[in-house]
Amino acid sequence: MLNVLTPDQVLRLIESAFQPRQNVILREHGAVAGDVLAEDVAASEYVPDFDRSTVDGYAVLSKDTFGCSDAIPAILPVIGAVQMGETPDFKLSPGTCAAIPTGGALPEGADAAVMVEYTEDYGDGTVGILKSAAPGQNLIFRGDDVKPGDVLFSKGRTLTPSDIGALAALGKTKLSVVAPLKVGVISTGDELVAPEEVPGPGQVRDVNTPMLLALLKDWNVEAVDFGRVPDVEAELLKRVSEAAERCDLVLISGGSSVGQKDAVCRVLETVGEVLMHGIAIKPGKPTILARTKDGKPLVGLPGHPAAAYYIARLFVRPLVDRLRGENHPERTVTALLTESVNANHGRAQITACKLEQRDGAVFAVPIRSKSGLITQLARADGFFVIPRDCEGLPQGAAVDVILNH
Amino acid sequence: MLNVLTPDQVLRLIESAFQPRQNVILREHGAVAGDVLAEDVAASEYVPDFDRSTVDGYAVLSKDTFGCSDAIPAILPVIGAVQMGETPDFKLSPGTCAAIPTGGALPEGADAAVMVEYTEDYGDGTVGILKSAAPGQNLIFRGDDVKPGDVLFSKGRTLTPSDIGALAALGKTKLSVVAPLKVGVISTGDELVAPEEVPGPGQVRDVNTPMLLALLKDWNVEAVDFGRVPDVEAELLKRVSEAAERCDLVLISGGSSVGQKDAVCRVLETVGEVLMHGIAIKPGKPTILARTKDGKPLVGLPGHPAAAYYIARLFVRPLVDRLRGENHPERTVTALLTESVNANHGRAQITACKLEQRDGAVFAVPIRSKSGLITQLARADGFFVIPRDCEGLPQGAAVDVILNH
Repeated sequence: MLNVLTPDQVLRLIESAFQPRQNVILREHGAVAGDVLAEDVAASEYVPDFDRSTVDGYAVLSKDTFGCSDAIPAILPVIGAVQMGETPDFKLSPGTCAAIPTGGALPEGADAAVMVEYTEDYGDGTVGILKSAAPGQNLIFRGDDVKPGDVLFSKGRTLTPSDIGALAALGKTKLSVVAPLKVGVISTGDELVAPEEVPGPGQVRDVNTPMLLALLKDWNVEAVDFGRVPDVEAELLKRVSEAAERCDLVLISGGSSVGQKDAVCRVLETVGEVLMHGIAIKPGKPTILARTKDGKPLVGLPGHPAAAYYIARLFVRPLVDRLRGENHPERTVTALLTESVNANHGRAQITACKLEQRDGAVFAVPIRSKSGLITQLARADGFFVIPRDCEGLPQGAAVDVILNH
Repeated sequence: MLNVLTPDQVLRLIESAFQPRQNVILREHGAVAGDVLAEDVAASEYVPDFDRSTVDGYAVLSKDTFGCSDAIPAILPVIGAVQMGETPDFKLSPGTCAAIPTGGALPEGADAAVMVEYTEDYGDGTVGILKSAAPGQNLIFRGDDVKPGDVLFSKGRTLTPSDIGALAALGKTKLSVVAPLKVGVISTGDELVAPEEVPGPGQVRDVNTPMLLALLKDWNVEAVDFGRVPDVEAELLKRVSEAAERCDLVLISGGSSVGQKDAVCRVLETVGEVLMHGIAIKPGKPTILARTKDGKPLVGLPGHPAAAYYIARLFVRPLVDRLRGENHPERTVTALLTESVNANHGRAQITACKLEQRDGAVFAVPIRSKSGLITQLARADGFFVIPRDCEGLPQGAAVDVILNH
């Protein structure tokens, strides 16, 4: 039996024991949101790709406008009008100007744009410029935003819908992304019945299978349901071996009895090597991390659904990130505790909470549940972790809440 | 031409002009994450479903322990051991006790549990209780967490993975959820080419189609791509009519020229009724909201990708929520501005930003982009809105950042 590790030690173990898989697929027609980039993406174009005006008005030679004012306008003949999306087929010579819309391409010769508000159209083919323009004023130049070679997205980034837009804009439709991760889910225990059944005495519904499948789907992982296995070690071994064969990662959520946990541990020792047995966190201590002979991770999760949920969020997600080579910052909301929370020195403590927004601040209301059962999950907006070297937090303390949604 | 509306007026118009659809589907084998509940979900069981111990130790009659201490233990014969998941087949009579694990069912007769740490096993079938227990101590009673009839989730809730767990635990596998919303996406403009093409002079890549499809998928909406339509009003009319026929909502992102926008507006007037033309927000002003003769919403989005993205997040998502009867709070992160941001009095201003966490606080770094083009989307973690009655925000001001991911 290995020692219990602290949460930080577990995260370090995940980094040291597992490497990103090298499986990459090529998206030929654009990546999709949720894809993890397997390469840096650098621009191959200029943005914008031509010098353009940022205002509706007139393209001018700035020196023609120096010293002009409402009282002494610079009167310039309008020699043309720039059309959106067209390269001007004329050029400005000193003492002339051209109408230009926002985003219009700057005609050759011009070096500034004047807002229409600072001009007067005399109706005879000339306009008066009422305010002098500095060179470059109201212009954006080719490549001001992006130049070829600029890295826009780094390897490991999980693409968002706005990223999909940016990639489309830059014509980046052929991309190497991390191949979808396949994760197997097994629930063990004679006492488990399907969620639609009414449990008899000593039976409980299998909550972990549907919950873990939903979480994995949320993480853009291909989840494979290997079903419920009774407490027969040979059967569990067979199922775990099959799942490890077919998947990149296997989650086995154990029953709640000591005997069941031992069985999971023995099976994981048979299939590979147990790296860790127990995390100094509450709830969630009975967690096992193992590795098959060919290096695939296997996780024994607590049977208790709330604990399995928290351990999945806090440790399985980082493991998934590691396997995908993903740089995934967990999104938290900083909130102020509405009441003090006690904790146990020596192990980290997870507390479910609701979030309330009032008076311009966000408050975390801890959920008191003696049972620590499903109501925690049903009523909570998220949860926070009190570090193990802390005996509790006072009312008003700031906590980083990990959101359930 | 209707007046330009403020952002708040647009949100109120969405509420008043459209009603939740009544299309409901029954999930026979459990809802899935992202489903929107079409009914309140009340518990039909007690949680926990029996009185149980919250500690490992001994079930006792509290009065047998009154007054005991380390020096004067109450010595009780152990008449049985409660097994996990089993109803005890014995009952405690005064002067006896029984071993009980955490979560074990309380035997009849017992009214408290004593932690094993406060007992001494004499090895002769008796234990010494070293600390008195109050009635109810270390117990949780049937229904303490949830009683039949308690509403766990309200109609309109978007289910999360943890909700899926809670529903499974309560056996709530048959649920009415809102039927998937079908949203059509059309891009208009002669200048549009596919993202994989290299735009010629005056051409631009169609960014909005892939971006909007990705956003809609992220919202758990069934998105239908109706492709790119050239600037021919009859063709646009045909395509919009077809999309409105097949979908619950149609998004038409317009070209950037005035002529194109007018064409979209005329088409929407033909298909139904234009409710609003222009939002006092920058970017995003050229937005149109219309309604078909049978009450379906049609939205004309700006052609500019960043503007289309923001308008989709700020207004199309609330419209989708309205149609689904969904109670969807937009998740924001409160952050402190690292520099002052100017705004234009009279219209709300959207500013993209990066988020940085340091010194225990979250900072929003505004992204300066003269072009307001794709780099905003590529480099930003989110965006914030400066209200229209505000001329700007100073460095250090708190802003609510809407996250891009």
